[in-house]
Amino acid sequence: MQRRPIIVAGRPLAGGRLPAVCAPLVGRTRDALLAETAEVAAKHPDLLEWRVDFFDGIADTQAVLATGVALREAAGGIPLLFTRRSRREGGEPIEIDEPQVVALCRAVCDSGFAALVDFEMDNAAEHIRELRECSRAKGIGLVLSFHDFQATPSLEVLVGRFEQAQRLGADVAKVAVMPRSPDDVLRLLQATSAASASLSIPVVSMSMAGLGAVSRLCGGVFGSALTFAVGRSASAPGQIPIDEVRAGLAILAKASGS
Amino acid sequence: MQRRPIIVAGRPLAGGRLPAVCAPLVGRTRDALLAETAEVAAKHPDLLEWRVDFFDGIADTQAVLATGVALREAAGGIPLLFTRRSRREGGEPIEIDEPQVVALCRAVCDSGFAALVDFEMDNAAEHIRELRECSRAKGIGLVLSFHDFQATPSLEVLVGRFEQAQRLGADVAKVAVMPRSPDDVLRLLQATSAASASLSIPVVSMSMAGLGAVSRLCGGVFGSALTFAVGRSASAPGQIPIDEVRAGLAILAKASGS
Repeated sequence: MQRRPIIVAGRPLAGGRLPAVCAPLVGRTRDALLAETAEVAAKHPDLLEWRVDFFDGIADTQAVLATGVALREAAGGIPLLFTRRSRREGGEPIEIDEPQVVALCRAVCDSGFAALVDFEMDNAAEHIRELRECSRAKGIGLVLSFHDFQATPSLEVLVGRFEQAQRLGADVAKVAVMPRSPDDVLRLLQATSAASASLSIPVVSMSMAGLGAVSRLCGGVFGSALTFAVGRSASAPGQIPIDEVRAGLAILAKASGS
Repeated sequence: MQRRPIIVAGRPLAGGRLPAVCAPLVGRTRDALLAETAEVAAKHPDLLEWRVDFFDGIADTQAVLATGVALREAAGGIPLLFTRRSRREGGEPIEIDEPQVVALCRAVCDSGFAALVDFEMDNAAEHIRELRECSRAKGIGLVLSFHDFQATPSLEVLVGRFEQAQRLGADVAKVAVMPRSPDDVLRLLQATSAASASLSIPVVSMSMAGLGAVSRLCGGVFGSALTFAVGRSASAPGQIPIDEVRAGLAILAKASGS
């Protein structure tokens, strides 16, 4: 295992501590998002993820960009991760098609309000290439992600997903899966440990729902660079409130002497 | 995995919650132990472990028994686990030999101040048999334990140690090992999960030192029935203060919906 933090604007997130804490923003309107951002930023997450698939104005690129710039202002220095989670991988239904999503992500890269952009590694190869090029040109980090809301794949498949992200040029590899047993949770942690040892990019992982909640606290011990915690509203099952994640991480850090 | 709590006097420890919290008592004199017990009992652990290898009077059976009875009084209803940890498995040097230790444990069973007695599964087979018989006759639970302060054995060996305890008649199987990598910690948790699924007795496990501290918080998710936490003084590396263990367990329990 190697402890490899996510780098944002040339600096390690959360001062290099693993895991950094990311809170999702899931408001449906600009006003709701601004209120949510103010409330959540006050809890000092290390990163804010704007889940744009929740945003009513997703089809209006100018509205997305203007809202993104306003969110960055409201975030008071906390960097933004811009994410459109697909229906297929647990996101909300949206009214634009895939090429339009790619165009939107390109526009977000051009705008520069986000420090990181999330894109699913199961998207079309040419879309990933396109987004890789434009995010790199703008100095924006690319998170390539994989989600399975049904089950936890085998160890080989899990490690393969992290490797796939790196092969596709990701700056961060993210894998989120659903456990059906405690052994599924352990396998996800094993894969995280293996990938963090073998890859050259930071890895992020979580085992979802109540059964997997332990991974949101302990994943950093096994190399996960980021944990998602609830600011105001959860964006996936099993997320823990920020204050409680921070308290748990502090107990763990003290106990492990790190 | 099955969630199997330790049974004391016919009732599940900590109301069946996994893990229950056990605090060690390591005073060298009766007065020191009584003060320690008062202080530690006030923190409400579910179990108190008297590590008699720290006790200066260990060679004086009557002193041990009288002190044990006094500790039970001072413990205010918190049950006692009586443990002589051998030098070989991380305990203190003592001035009595193995047959005398067995005689002492028998006298403790006869006295009845302890609810549980710990004995190492690597002790002589006839000593284990002897203690098994006398503890059973007195209704006292037998914890058969294994400790490796150097390393974490293979998954097969770890599971084998839990099985060995059950085969030897234990009421509780305990395995404590030293990790050298995060993968060692995961392997101990895997073995715990496997043993808790296959055995018919409760299992207790911990990965020691700072690296393994995560197992002291998360072990219950994978079937460990007991975690050792610091009341006043630690008895093994990596133990976390009781309040912090309780806080961490509460966060985890809430997050996992248990």
